[in-house]
Amino acid sequence: MKANENNNNDLDEQSVLKTRMKKIKHKIAIISGKGGVGKTLTAVNLAISFALQGHKNRVGLLDADLHGPCVPKMLGMDEQKLRVGPVGAFPAVGPLGLKVVSMVFVLEGPEVPVVWRGPIKMRAIQQFLTDIVWGELDFLFIDLPPGTGDEPLSVMKLLPELDGVVIVTIPSEVSQNVVEKAITFSKQLNVPIIGIVENMSGFICPTCSNETQIFKTGGGQRVAEKHSVPFLGRIPIDPRICEASDRGHPFILENPDSPAANAFAQIVDKIKKYIQNKEKP
Amino acid sequence: MKANENNNNDLDEQSVLKTRMKKIKHKIAIISGKGGVGKTLTAVNLAISFALQGHKNRVGLLDADLHGPCVPKMLGMDEQKLRVGPVGAFPAVGPLGLKVVSMVFVLEGPEVPVVWRGPIKMRAIQQFLTDIVWGELDFLFIDLPPGTGDEPLSVMKLLPELDGVVIVTIPSEVSQNVVEKAITFSKQLNVPIIGIVENMSGFICPTCSNETQIFKTGGGQRVAEKHSVPFLGRIPIDPRICEASDRGHPFILENPDSPAANAFAQIVDKIKKYIQNKEKP
Repeated sequence: MKANENNNNDLDEQSVLKTRMKKIKHKIAIISGKGGVGKTLTAVNLAISFALQGHKNRVGLLDADLHGPCVPKMLGMDEQKLRVGPVGAFPAVGPLGLKVVSMVFVLEGPEVPVVWRGPIKMRAIQQFLTDIVWGELDFLFIDLPPGTGDEPLSVMKLLPELDGVVIVTIPSEVSQNVVEKAITFSKQLNVPIIGIVENMSGFICPTCSNETQIFKTGGGQRVAEKHSVPFLGRIPIDPRICEASDRGHPFILENPDSPAANAFAQIVDKIKKYIQNKEKP
Repeated sequence: MKANENNNNDLDEQSVLKTRMKKIKHKIAIISGKGGVGKTLTAVNLAISFALQGHKNRVGLLDADLHGPCVPKMLGMDEQKLRVGPVGAFPAVGPLGLKVVSMVFVLEGPEVPVVWRGPIKMRAIQQFLTDIVWGELDFLFIDLPPGTGDEPLSVMKLLPELDGVVIVTIPSEVSQNVVEKAITFSKQLNVPIIGIVENMSGFICPTCSNETQIFKTGGGQRVAEKHSVPFLGRIPIDPRICEASDRGHPFILENPDSPAANAFAQIVDKIKKYIQNKEKP
């Protein structure tokens, strides 16, 4: 009896998940093998770029990094909470009508850790997709934690219709081995790879304008070529990125003419072309 | 009958774990809330520093980052494998007799991802501690993946005698929220916090010598003061760190007089004092 009830609940949940997700035209996950490569920065600025370019109020951003959620801080939304209604919880609303869901909106304080093992994490991500009233969206971006463990596996399993993944890396060779794992992981799970972004690619000194390759350069492109995966672009190091992120302002909105914003614009173009090609009959 | 057998196996494993771990005088885990903050860099250079300062052949380094293991690459050991003997597997041996264990030594190639959920990860870490013949060591450093999930939980559960954790962060405010989670996590699990290291703290242009705060500065110290946790030191950004790591040479061995190496030396002194104070009757 108990088992049957559970099965029925599972079926109900699956159909709710399907109904909710059908209203979202495109879903793109941002992954990386290694942490601290600018995955969240990429996710936030991609979401804002798409909202800016004709999709205002129609872009969602799921912060699926349960242990280290940073999306709300970068969008100046860390004081917000999820509003709960009879049909589910509603995402918090950020700049340009961006709909955002994050553990930050659920936890009691920023210093509270999420001390969860794998199975509970799978459950949490399922709830973020099933119990949240995302509404009609053109795009949902999913910011996943680094690595190839429970959270990415859960998202790929729950969303077989995923348009693809954007893989973020930094140019150092130490990172290259790890980004190759992310490529193999996506291929094994049959998830299309939209392309690779190389972040923190060179630093131009604001005083003397000389460039230093703090983490080298070109590593992302080399890995892309080696594995026949598209290369989306190279984002340079800019201290204003950290500064804007810390103040909760999306970098590309504050510095639209910077080299880093131009790099983001080119990446967005390539993702748009990928989606258009996919939609062609 | 089956259950009893399992229980006996569990008991056997626990007693093997205890016997192996008794031969290691001190165990220190390196953790962070956020990825990419230089946790592995810190673990590698701490292990090398202790080996240099009177503990040659008596330091171990466990790379417990199962999804993104980077320790072997940074030590130029990525071609090595674990040697297996009748009593267990033996660690690979690196510079200064450093005994290293990593998923890299087990996987078939650098691009192979470890697509494991939580429970298997717990098991893998247990095996790294139980089935490896670590031998007599003065120190075992454990490089944990970012976050507060399965791997750190497993290590804290399996090693209640842990001397403490070193928490690594970068100075940005976005990172501060996440490092606070790591502090709360350690306190909840009653694991002593040896202190906080602030990595990537300021960059001095090699051309004009002007300093740029790429990720700001002082964030680590502020969090340490706020939570009454020792602050161990500030490591500046130095392109030679990435370059040496990529070539597999420990940075402090190649650049012993650099500001970053001096910062590491001060951090080592503080950890030594912490251990000495602990050993006092």
